[in-house]
Amino acid sequence: MLPSATVGTLELKSLVEPIRRIIHRVRGHFVRASAEDVDFSCRLVEVSQKNCKGEEERFYIPYDKLVVAVGSVTNPHGVKGLENCNFLKDINDAREIRNKVIQNLELSCLPTTTDEERKRLLSFVVCGGGPTGVEFAAELYDLLNEDLTLHFPRLLRNQISVHLIQSRDHILNTYDETLSKYAEEHFARDQVQVLVNSRVSEVRSDSIVFTQKGENGTIITKELPMGFCLWSTGVSQPEFCKRLSQRLGDVQPNKHALETDTHLRLNGTPLGDVYAIGDCSTVQNNVADHIITFLRVLAWKHGKDPENLELHFSDWRNVAEQVKQRFPQAVGHLKRLDKLFQEYDKDQSGTLDFGELRELLKQIDSKLTSLPATAQRAHQQGYYLGHKFNKLARAAQGLKANEIVEGDLDAAVYKAFEYKHLGSLAYIGNSAVFDLGQGWGWSGGLWAVYAWRSIYFAQSVSLRTRMLMAMDWAKRSLFGRDLMSY
Amino acid sequence: MLPSATVGTLELKSLVEPIRRIIHRVRGHFVRASAEDVDFSCRLVEVSQKNCKGEEERFYIPYDKLVVAVGSVTNPHGVKGLENCNFLKDINDAREIRNKVIQNLELSCLPTTTDEERKRLLSFVVCGGGPTGVEFAAELYDLLNEDLTLHFPRLLRNQISVHLIQSRDHILNTYDETLSKYAEEHFARDQVQVLVNSRVSEVRSDSIVFTQKGENGTIITKELPMGFCLWSTGVSQPEFCKRLSQRLGDVQPNKHALETDTHLRLNGTPLGDVYAIGDCSTVQNNVADHIITFLRVLAWKHGKDPENLELHFSDWRNVAEQVKQRFPQAVGHLKRLDKLFQEYDKDQSGTLDFGELRELLKQIDSKLTSLPATAQRAHQQGYYLGHKFNKLARAAQGLKANEIVEGDLDAAVYKAFEYKHLGSLAYIGNSAVFDLGQGWGWSGGLWAVYAWRSIYFAQSVSLRTRMLMAMDWAKRSLFGRDLMSY
Repeated sequence: MLPSATVGTLELKSLVEPIRRIIHRVRGHFVRASAEDVDFSCRLVEVSQKNCKGEEERFYIPYDKLVVAVGSVTNPHGVKGLENCNFLKDINDAREIRNKVIQNLELSCLPTTTDEERKRLLSFVVCGGGPTGVEFAAELYDLLNEDLTLHFPRLLRNQISVHLIQSRDHILNTYDETLSKYAEEHFARDQVQVLVNSRVSEVRSDSIVFTQKGENGTIITKELPMGFCLWSTGVSQPEFCKRLSQRLGDVQPNKHALETDTHLRLNGTPLGDVYAIGDCSTVQNNVADHIITFLRVLAWKHGKDPENLELHFSDWRNVAEQVKQRFPQAVGHLKRLDKLFQEYDKDQSGTLDFGELRELLKQIDSKLTSLPATAQRAHQQGYYLGHKFNKLARAAQGLKANEIVEGDLDAAVYKAFEYKHLGSLAYIGNSAVFDLGQGWGWSGGLWAVYAWRSIYFAQSVSLRTRMLMAMDWAKRSLFGRDLMSY
Repeated sequence: MLPSATVGTLELKSLVEPIRRIIHRVRGHFVRASAEDVDFSCRLVEVSQKNCKGEEERFYIPYDKLVVAVGSVTNPHGVKGLENCNFLKDINDAREIRNKVIQNLELSCLPTTTDEERKRLLSFVVCGGGPTGVEFAAELYDLLNEDLTLHFPRLLRNQISVHLIQSRDHILNTYDETLSKYAEEHFARDQVQVLVNSRVSEVRSDSIVFTQKGENGTIITKELPMGFCLWSTGVSQPEFCKRLSQRLGDVQPNKHALETDTHLRLNGTPLGDVYAIGDCSTVQNNVADHIITFLRVLAWKHGKDPENLELHFSDWRNVAEQVKQRFPQAVGHLKRLDKLFQEYDKDQSGTLDFGELRELLKQIDSKLTSLPATAQRAHQQGYYLGHKFNKLARAAQGLKANEIVEGDLDAAVYKAFEYKHLGSLAYIGNSAVFDLGQGWGWSGGLWAVYAWRSIYFAQSVSLRTRMLMAMDWAKRSLFGRDLMSY
């Protein structure tokens, strides 16, 4: 909801819960310092912090279980001059953006400002047509129209322009197509200029340079004068994660996120020691490999050569059960077992041989998409780990009694993580779009906005943040947005 | 109420009303720029503003009536190292203070911080025992006790110390003595160290040096390690005011504020052109001079020599009326006209001669104290001018009709400004003190705090700020203070 905070629809404070307040509830400790490295064998995290003299000091923090949840950083896409852009990743960014917007408005009111200069100051550019970019553009547009026109000279209004630069051929391209269409039409009506198929090549202090692909594939370079530029073109991996995946080597081939198994354990680390959740991590989907090895073991047990293993439908059903249990995400793709069986039983032998099975599983693999980098997902993973750790703690006694200390304890006491998609949604200016997955989504006007709010509302951190948010929305409708720079 | 904002009792935003919102109501214009100088003859204000390239640009703004209300700046008292202090004059200062406080707390939690260092970080010093200093000390103490102990390791608590350095022999020395006593006792109970008769000589990055006068008049120099220092030792004149009073020369002898007459017109400027209100101004009390000249004129009219003028009681009563009308502040001192008459009629002649009268008026002059530099006073002056200008506008037609364009129009259409003292009050930590003037005031616990709040409440800028404030106080009691740095 940061986009709302940037224009004063929401209080910065309503969006965040002081970490110490949360920690306090569970009698935890909090250290404000930045993690630099991890020694997995000694179970130590190396952290650094500037001391009161501003010198960096490093020290180690030991752990029994470590959860890596460092999120992600803005993706520069190797574009020059990003120092001229604002970003929108934390509450401080939101404050800076708000101050910049006000600053530009005030500057454009000065008698010494030329018309051309004013036009530039009032040209707001958003790079990236994802949810963040779209929502910011929408909020900004609302602000300029609903509040600005009241408090600033009317003639400003005509000189304001909002531009949205998107590299793909649609905005909200992760959403259902009808929805991105709806959003585009909405923006068109609102005179928010949407520039699709456009790649930013350089950001200058007073303008932005980008190349646009025409219908006939010709590429034209354009320059757009701007007074404000938001850079929200997706995320990339923080330094810390890069360092970790280097340490772990080949087991972490993914360059964009740390790979975990379906129990959210960081691949390549001692089982049950290190977990990774949120934007910095991705759950690995290797159904095929996993099942194959599983079958190999099974085959050898029975003294058979897996290569000429024949699965009857009953066997296949058992395998499928295995898969479902281990990879909850796959359930959706294992509904019609019989159909799948027939489909892949090429030779109509009534049995699946090893090759056919591998094919089938590979198919499923390919269908399993990686989880979205959203608060929704991080939220679910957090809860998952919380519950699991409690389970583990409670089970610890029993396990010790039965001398179970090795092996896959997580799997023993708790189910694998399953992501429940509650749908993606985006505010697009007194109107919102929802994507509930599996191709069905919808969009609508004000009533949808309230739905949108109530969903965010339910997701928000704590009772406190919920109440504050409610107050904010009440305030906004009572007094309009608060535009103050501080 | 800024002290409350520094520790998150109140939202920064709840204290301020966007100027554009206010201006908008009266269909006014707003230019965010800083006044540099005024050309009184051409009625032009020279203002400067940084343009988008950060270069300073100057331009002129013409005026019919100019109101100078630039407030005041912190008084450095020529102490070295004030760059190591925080100030508390605007909403930005409040934010910085809050971040500094959190920063210190977090630093002191780091394992790398030595005990000595931690003690220093947690030693909070407040310079200045005025309302601001006292209220900040109180709020800070509340924060540390009510919220901190919950969210930070308990052992921190014992190492925290709050010190209040006051140059006079009492804190709140402008208040009634019983009240400052009460405040001191309250602080003593709360272990807020109050250092009276102490003058700060230097502020260092990690300690503060001050001299303290002992009972026997000996002066000892002490050094106090500190992690945070608030400088709130009264106000002085902004550059702009200094420049104006230089321009106006001898008619502006006062080095601390711009002098106005009782109609708030800046002395030395064309009558009815320029006004000054708030901290930057002071209302001149020259009863004697004024009345004497008035009498001189009167005397000459009657062809008498003022020096051997004899006033009977009836004449004296008329003079007194004159005084009351022109100097509303003097009313309190002109209650018992007969007593005064007898008192100053040294020779019991039954009449006052010129000398005796001058004596009497001088006495009254001396009794008229200058107005306090409070929001209360600025608030009243603002309203006064607002009403007067409306009156003047309405009267304009009639005056023109009667060809009255010269002379004391203000006096003709509206009464002189009269300051109504609503009492001074200060929050001293779940308890408050009130000074209602004329020696009677009172102090009390929680119920007084609510009284304190409701008074501030009534004074606050707009319906909006009132509601926000109410919400904040509700939030605080529900969720405690919000300590987040941004």
